[in-house]
Amino acid sequence: MEQTLDFVKKNENRFLEELFELLRIPSVSADSKYKPEVARAAEFIRTSLQHAGADNVEICPTAGHPIVYGEKIIDPKLKTVIVYGHYDVQPADPVNLWTTPPFEPTLRDGKIYARGSCDDKGQVFMHIKAFESMMKTNSLPCNVRFMIEGEEEVGSSNLGAWVKENKHRLKGDVILISDTSIIANDVPSIEAGLRGLSYVEVEVTGPNRDLHSGVYGGAVGNPIQVLCQMITSMKDENNHITIPGFYEDVIELSKDERAELNKTPYNEAEYKKDLGVNELAGERGYTTLERTGIRPTLELNGIWGGYTGEGSKTVLPSQAFAKISMRLVPNQSSEKITKLFEDHFAKLAPKSVRVKVRPHHGGEPVVTPTDSVAFKAASMAMETTFGKKPIPTRGGGSIPIVALFEKELGLKSVLMGFGLDSDLIHSPNEHYGVFNFMKGIETIPLFFRNFANLSAGK
Amino acid sequence: MEQTLDFVKKNENRFLEELFELLRIPSVSADSKYKPEVARAAEFIRTSLQHAGADNVEICPTAGHPIVYGEKIIDPKLKTVIVYGHYDVQPADPVNLWTTPPFEPTLRDGKIYARGSCDDKGQVFMHIKAFESMMKTNSLPCNVRFMIEGEEEVGSSNLGAWVKENKHRLKGDVILISDTSIIANDVPSIEAGLRGLSYVEVEVTGPNRDLHSGVYGGAVGNPIQVLCQMITSMKDENNHITIPGFYEDVIELSKDERAELNKTPYNEAEYKKDLGVNELAGERGYTTLERTGIRPTLELNGIWGGYTGEGSKTVLPSQAFAKISMRLVPNQSSEKITKLFEDHFAKLAPKSVRVKVRPHHGGEPVVTPTDSVAFKAASMAMETTFGKKPIPTRGGGSIPIVALFEKELGLKSVLMGFGLDSDLIHSPNEHYGVFNFMKGIETIPLFFRNFANLSAGK
Repeated sequence: MEQTLDFVKKNENRFLEELFELLRIPSVSADSKYKPEVARAAEFIRTSLQHAGADNVEICPTAGHPIVYGEKIIDPKLKTVIVYGHYDVQPADPVNLWTTPPFEPTLRDGKIYARGSCDDKGQVFMHIKAFESMMKTNSLPCNVRFMIEGEEEVGSSNLGAWVKENKHRLKGDVILISDTSIIANDVPSIEAGLRGLSYVEVEVTGPNRDLHSGVYGGAVGNPIQVLCQMITSMKDENNHITIPGFYEDVIELSKDERAELNKTPYNEAEYKKDLGVNELAGERGYTTLERTGIRPTLELNGIWGGYTGEGSKTVLPSQAFAKISMRLVPNQSSEKITKLFEDHFAKLAPKSVRVKVRPHHGGEPVVTPTDSVAFKAASMAMETTFGKKPIPTRGGGSIPIVALFEKELGLKSVLMGFGLDSDLIHSPNEHYGVFNFMKGIETIPLFFRNFANLSAGK
Repeated sequence: MEQTLDFVKKNENRFLEELFELLRIPSVSADSKYKPEVARAAEFIRTSLQHAGADNVEICPTAGHPIVYGEKIIDPKLKTVIVYGHYDVQPADPVNLWTTPPFEPTLRDGKIYARGSCDDKGQVFMHIKAFESMMKTNSLPCNVRFMIEGEEEVGSSNLGAWVKENKHRLKGDVILISDTSIIANDVPSIEAGLRGLSYVEVEVTGPNRDLHSGVYGGAVGNPIQVLCQMITSMKDENNHITIPGFYEDVIELSKDERAELNKTPYNEAEYKKDLGVNELAGERGYTTLERTGIRPTLELNGIWGGYTGEGSKTVLPSQAFAKISMRLVPNQSSEKITKLFEDHFAKLAPKSVRVKVRPHHGGEPVVTPTDSVAFKAASMAMETTFGKKPIPTRGGGSIPIVALFEKELGLKSVLMGFGLDSDLIHSPNEHYGVFNFMKGIETIPLFFRNFANLSAGK
């Protein structure tokens, strides 16, 4: 193990240079004009896996962006870890708010600034480099399979079908994923639950054309006004979501469970200061940790309609649009919630407009066990590298594929991420600490060793 | 007069060709990148006035876009008509909804399709061609001054100062404006009142950066949600505007006045069919004609915030924006209403956000007399050309400058427009009927003759 960690330290500069190369590829999966770039990123991942020492490396085409597979089976009798990650990234806009361009990675104050630096290229690359370090020092203690996809940011639409068709080469004992964060660099943590997601786009149409607001204003339903009213009515004065049946399947946590969750370090004054807000806002009766961890939400991700250019235009527009996402908690179903939303939105619409709801991607919520061998292996590994036992947390984000792995492969996941909530993933100036990147590469081989040892009863 | 009308008929094709040339200039005053084009349109107006026979034609610079002045004083003892109009146009977007490009005028089914074809290049050009026709046939019966500006669509910000400084060359007896519409081609009408305008842009800021909606959603005030709530709260369930003091200065019309107004031809079934809506929406207790004519309104002209591109992005945005305009009725003050809005919007904002209100342009409401010599001259002229006495109406749009002319020059205006409400001004596929264009050129010389004769007691 010492040899491996030595190799990691000696190769830090090269690892960073290679990561920068990967970050320079604008592999934005949501926007079709970046398709060739997404393919280029897949190619980069393939080459990296091959150089690291993986066998049977393959770019597997799908109906969307490809999945890169690779493996190292040292002994079929040994345990097998399946590493999952994604090489696609969120769109970079608004680009003008980036201090340095999103696809020109820059090192500032010990942080790598680039779209995807943390989510998830930086974190997926830790695994490839940790694997390389174990291979070069002959210390890989069990089998490993890599499954790195290119559609996580658009709902992993094609991974499900691929997993079903490739069950034969996805035999393993645990899924290991680094696509989450720790509480702080001196407060390590491991996600033990993830919220699901239902994402919709709504369209409200009033008159059949844009009208002059002076000639028609006051007499014709304005789709922006109507959309605002419909959005407003979807939450009550306590910020409870009013969609009938929305909370039906939510399992309320016990007093003890909530008390445990609320032990997570959290400083409201610092939280507000970091965000630049005077007051927080959320569902009445729940703390911030509960609102972001164990409660379902409904958030507006985008809205547009009418004239949005420079100056003024006295138009009563024909249409208005919004993007709305709902985070779901265990036992809620993405499909059911999407259906409830669609029905409710249609019912809410006054007769002066017509409405449409287009479901985007969804994903199911999951809870991961904290008493498994794999979780213990991760916990012990982090305790070694951070010098502190990590805290199990309930995360706010969604990795829909975790529920799918459980359903299709019967495998639990361990969510051992190394990012920070302040890394600005999905925002301008996304970054990832060199500290975190290197800490990940050091921790992963320890996880492999612990997992092999604990599984063997050592 | 017959000679003049003969000249008009003989020159129809040339008049149309010249108008097309003017329509090809994208003189969008709201967008600074079109500044050279706006200047080119001013140049075109100058040349047209000179060729028509005007004297002392001049492009007068202002802090914004220039004003074109020209005159023909045949005898200082005679009456003087001041013609006002504007050569600037609304932005053309959404450009993709135009059947033919907005600045490539096209003739289809007897209509001229182009941005500005009706509002106001087509209508202002009728005056230049009517003037030319009178000059070429030696039949101009009184003096005329032209004042054609380039900032009407952005609030005529610099015309006020220019009028003040140029009172010496704006001596006259009436302002004649063609920038409004008639009820139908077989139902002529003249506007006898115009609503005022207060136009604002609002900005709502939540967190200091775009956030991941999975990590922070549910705990932080979402500026889109807050903006929707603030917009919603500005109208009650009867669609009354809730800004304190908003209706304070509104003078309610008497029962008789309302009954008179409601005699204007209006067919609700046809109105809804034309707009493609199943139901109208507006202030309770008022008819459509009242809602668009004598009642103040608050309309959303645009809204934007968060991710509005292709696909999905799970962002909790930092900011959301809207453009909101209020139409005002006589006795309301644009400045006062803007101030009431600003105060109310600031008060409405919850502590989780910060808000800003940026006033755009405004304008005061006006009522024009229907018993003046000039109004009678217009009414008689239209009766001659349309074969029907025009109906006095109360228009929904705003021409803020009318109130200013009254204040600065002590002159009343006659709003003798020839457009149709269905001309799609401010919308994609704006058009103007060749019928209407030619009817205008024929009616204007009759107005001049009637005005001269009635003023002379003939």
